[in-house]
Amino acid sequence: MGMTGPGPLHIAVIGPGHATVEECVAAEEVGRRIGEAGAVVVCGGLGGVMEAACRGAKSVGGTTVGILPGADRSAANDHVGIAVATGMGEARNVIVVATADAVVAVGGEFGTLSEIALALRAGKAVIGLHSWDLSRRGAPVDGVVPATSAEEAVTVALERAGAS
Amino acid sequence: MGMTGPGPLHIAVIGPGHATVEECVAAEEVGRRIGEAGAVVVCGGLGGVMEAACRGAKSVGGTTVGILPGADRSAANDHVGIAVATGMGEARNVIVVATADAVVAVGGEFGTLSEIALALRAGKAVIGLHSWDLSRRGAPVDGVVPATSAEEAVTVALERAGAS
Amino acid sequence: MGMTGPGPLHIAVIGPGHATVEECVAAEEVGRRIGEAGAVVVCGGLGGVMEAACRGAKSVGGTTVGILPGADRSAANDHVGIAVATGMGEARNVIVVATADAVVAVGGEFGTLSEIALALRAGKAVIGLHSWDLSRRGAPVDGVVPATSAEEAVTVALERAGAS
Amino acid sequence: MGMTGPGPLHIAVIGPGHATVEECVAAEEVGRRIGEAGAVVVCGGLGGVMEAACRGAKSVGGTTVGILPGADRSAANDHVGIAVATGMGEARNVIVVATADAVVAVGGEFGTLSEIALALRAGKAVIGLHSWDLSRRGAPVDGVVPATSAEEAVTVALERAGAS
Repeated sequence: MGMTGPGPLHIAVIGPGHATVEECVAAEEVGRRIGEAGAVVVCGGLGGVMEAACRGAKSVGGTTVGILPGADRSAANDHVGIAVATGMGEARNVIVVATADAVVAVGGEFGTLSEIALALRAGKAVIGLHSWDLSRRGAPVDGVVPATSAEEAVTVALERAGAS
Repeated sequence: MGMTGPGPLHIAVIGPGHATVEECVAAEEVGRRIGEAGAVVVCGGLGGVMEAACRGAKSVGGTTVGILPGADRSAANDHVGIAVATGMGEARNVIVVATADAVVAVGGEFGTLSEIALALRAGKAVIGLHSWDLSRRGAPVDGVVPATSAEEAVTVALERAGAS
Repeated sequence: MGMTGPGPLHIAVIGPGHATVEECVAAEEVGRRIGEAGAVVVCGGLGGVMEAACRGAKSVGGTTVGILPGADRSAANDHVGIAVATGMGEARNVIVVATADAVVAVGGEFGTLSEIALALRAGKAVIGLHSWDLSRRGAPVDGVVPATSAEEAVTVALERAGAS
Repeated sequence: MGMTGPGPLHIAVIGPGHATVEECVAAEEVGRRIGEAGAVVVCGGLGGVMEAACRGAKSVGGTTVGILPGADRSAANDHVGIAVATGMGEARNVIVVATADAVVAVGGEFGTLSEIALALRAGKAVIGLHSWDLSRRGAPVDGVVPATSAEEAVTVALERAGAS
């Protein structure tokens, strides 16, 4: 689709700021595997899944970008390498998605669902780990590609990002 | 929740810009009933469900607001009374939701789903007519209140908006 | 330039939320004259110059639109007819400008200057009453059209808006 | 002011996308000196002054962030290390400013002026090289700190950023 920007692939990791231990373990592995592949982790910059993904990527020397809702860069978690302060609240979700070549959703509340929907609208692949299932008028809607492990999620995300 | 602004209730009507005849008929009735109740129709300002809802509201002298993705007000459909040009693309979905006291979704593609998710995240009621069903990890998630008619959708939306 | 939207002209009135009595008197007359001309007042929805302009327009039955920085419509001043809640902070200035066919600046702090600059960048006329003068490298820059009265400011703004 | 985020200082370099040779030479030196100081260059990601600043920073191994108006990361100039795609048009100016601890303006058209105004409104230092002079009602307004060389501009910007 010609959306891929210069340099390494960018994979968004999205999920709740207040996450379960299981979600954080999965997100950390997702981030680590993205970093090992030489791709950039893009996220919302705060805690929970976002922080775990950044920690994972940083543990292998990866690059992490946090797109924050507030106007103060210091709200970023400690594993964000580049913090972008938007001051635009939930509208920053649009930027997380626009900056990514593909998206991995780990768990997720309604904010995560908004990012999933925005990514699908933009024609970007969304891989889900324990995340949302979509149906409309009672029929399932293809959209989120389910994965059963962090390894599978990242493998598929990188494939789809490169193909996009 | 103290979110209700001054004056009349504001109800967002969201749905696809390219809609089926059935969806447009439903959206027009939704708009008409909102207008009859003295509430304001808020929408994305373009065609399909958005246009039908505005046409319905205007047919009874109602007020219609279109929050456009582009920077040119003239892109609004002919039944938008107040057109707001954002120039922010999909981020205008955040504004549609923030401006509403409750949301009625008629049908819907992924853009509509993003608005549903943003509204639920903001704690606002979403009433669905032939719209999305949400589930996570295989279990249904309360969120979109299903309605079986335009009349029911508007009645519930107004109740929830007033109670919010 | 084909930017003019459907229906009446839209004139933004911009200026500080904490304004002097002189600025408020001028802004109220600006709003009143816009309303008398059948045009819509667009503003940032808060106090000071914004509130005075809305009060003036409402006093003659005019239409007023407030584009708010916060996510709560109830922050609008009492004379805003249509309040749009953006939740995007200063980025709402971009929307005020995009929605207007021409801009009248009354006084103004740095926020007002950002709106003046955005309007000039978009090729829209800006009329200034006791507002900013622009120069670059020591030389004046044509941009803000100075007016010496509210009457002159509105007359020029309507002319330029119609011509744009 | 507690606005400084984690890690290195972030300095925005703002200026026209279509710049003179003199402006590009100055911007490249500004970028190089920011990079030599271990600070991050933040910019709008496109050509002219933005590209020159990134090229300067990259020439000494510095970090460069481009906040793009469009939704496609590939529009970034070749010297942007981290490209953020916003899809929000001019509203991305708000993000450039929010992400910076201080701002250096090199030359500048109206878009640059909007960033200067937004930065001053946010209480951030703006250092100007051949840039805008501000006055209101005929009297100069303190705001842009004039510098006469790239070296001076960066020295003052780093001082102010650290002090903020």
